[in-house]
Amino acid sequence: MDPTTPQVACFEAGIKFGSLYHQFAGTPVSPDSADSLAAAMEDAIENQPHCESVTVEVREAPLREAIAAAGADYTELTGRFLDVSMTIDYEGCVVETSMAMADGYPLMQVDSVGE
Amino acid sequence: MDPTTPQVACFEAGIKFGSLYHQFAGTPVSPDSADSLAAAMEDAIENQPHCESVTVEVREAPLREAIAAAGADYTELTGRFLDVSMTIDYEGCVVETSMAMADGYPLMQVDSVGE
Amino acid sequence: MDPTTPQVACFEAGIKFGSLYHQFAGTPVSPDSADSLAAAMEDAIENQPHCESVTVEVREAPLREAIAAAGADYTELTGRFLDVSMTIDYEGCVVETSMAMADGYPLMQVDSVGE
Amino acid sequence: MDPTTPQVACFEAGIKFGSLYHQFAGTPVSPDSADSLAAAMEDAIENQPHCESVTVEVREAPLREAIAAAGADYTELTGRFLDVSMTIDYEGCVVETSMAMADGYPLMQVDSVGE
Repeated sequence: MDPTTPQVACFEAGIKFGSLYHQFAGTPVSPDSADSLAAAMEDAIENQPHCESVTVEVREAPLREAIAAAGADYTELTGRFLDVSMTIDYEGCVVETSMAMADGYPLMQVDSVGE
Repeated sequence: MDPTTPQVACFEAGIKFGSLYHQFAGTPVSPDSADSLAAAMEDAIENQPHCESVTVEVREAPLREAIAAAGADYTELTGRFLDVSMTIDYEGCVVETSMAMADGYPLMQVDSVGE
Repeated sequence: MDPTTPQVACFEAGIKFGSLYHQFAGTPVSPDSADSLAAAMEDAIENQPHCESVTVEVREAPLREAIAAAGADYTELTGRFLDVSMTIDYEGCVVETSMAMADGYPLMQVDSVGE
Repeated sequence: MDPTTPQVACFEAGIKFGSLYHQFAGTPVSPDSADSLAAAMEDAIENQPHCESVTVEVREAPLREAIAAAGADYTELTGRFLDVSMTIDYEGCVVETSMAMADGYPLMQVDSVGE
């Protein structure tokens, strides 16, 4: 069957999550550079169509732990350092999505779908 | 409202498209390296959850044109060199998706959503 | 032969350029999001070893032209929208490098090597 | 001072390493998809100027361990799963470089510089 408007809204939301993750995963990151990276991720993905807002937070505690465990000054960005939420509005259908840790893994999920 | 199974299936499909595009966009590509890149893109994204199959074709004509226009030996991978189709199966709901050129732009879309 | 200190300094400089370019190429960018992206690129790459400073400027004129030509609101980051300069200090050997347009192409080059 | 030919050769070698790493880090990878990814990485980077040859091996043991430890089917490509060697030839100056694990970290280095 052809997709419904809410289904396309969810597809669009997924595109943004995959884009955000795979564009920026691997970026060198430290506590000092976390804020500018988070801001750039938000602004970059908000350019994409139907993307109302993106909020990215770099989780400082696991970031500091990973850097300390490695005896390094920075590490590479990966999902366990990120909390992300996004609002997509596709033809009036609002989808709320988020990525957070679940059982030790970053889980991307649809939190709600407007009518 | 909470998402339905078909809506989550579409979200999952979107994640794969965003991942594929933003992981590989910018890769140096030429006619000689196009096949191995396409194969790697397929195999890499098929690792992701609920991803049944991925087909990537690098469009040789626009690739050759871009390289010739630049007087170069290769260029960077971008959407206008790609035809992609994907099948997602999320809890029995099968979603068919594709990316192809429309009005000069690569358009990612949901082609069908199973019941 | 084993590399000399200035040769390793140039190798380190090259690593930073390749990293910067291929980490961020393909990022959605518009005039409004250019500054936060440039700041994140600078801060991210400055994390890398022996990297004293990175300056990234997004060239607004070609960015606006590309977006207008496409009838779009944003485009994907690529070399022709970037001016980059970097200072590497490897064991006291200072290398100055830059990337800018030459004959329509972004050219990465070593500007000077300290003694 | 202006760079010498061997210094530029080392800069070019560094560009290829940074490109390879940051283009492909984060790619979903499993033992089954490792070979096609390695082949694509080699072919893609060999497109770049002055790049004679690239050899990429995905280290299967640490890859399998990381996947098993996570109770997953795949993981994201990162340096500890890679052995890479490259030969650069810049105006007759041949540079041999490699990346391998040292003290738990992937270390990119210049192995030799021709005259």
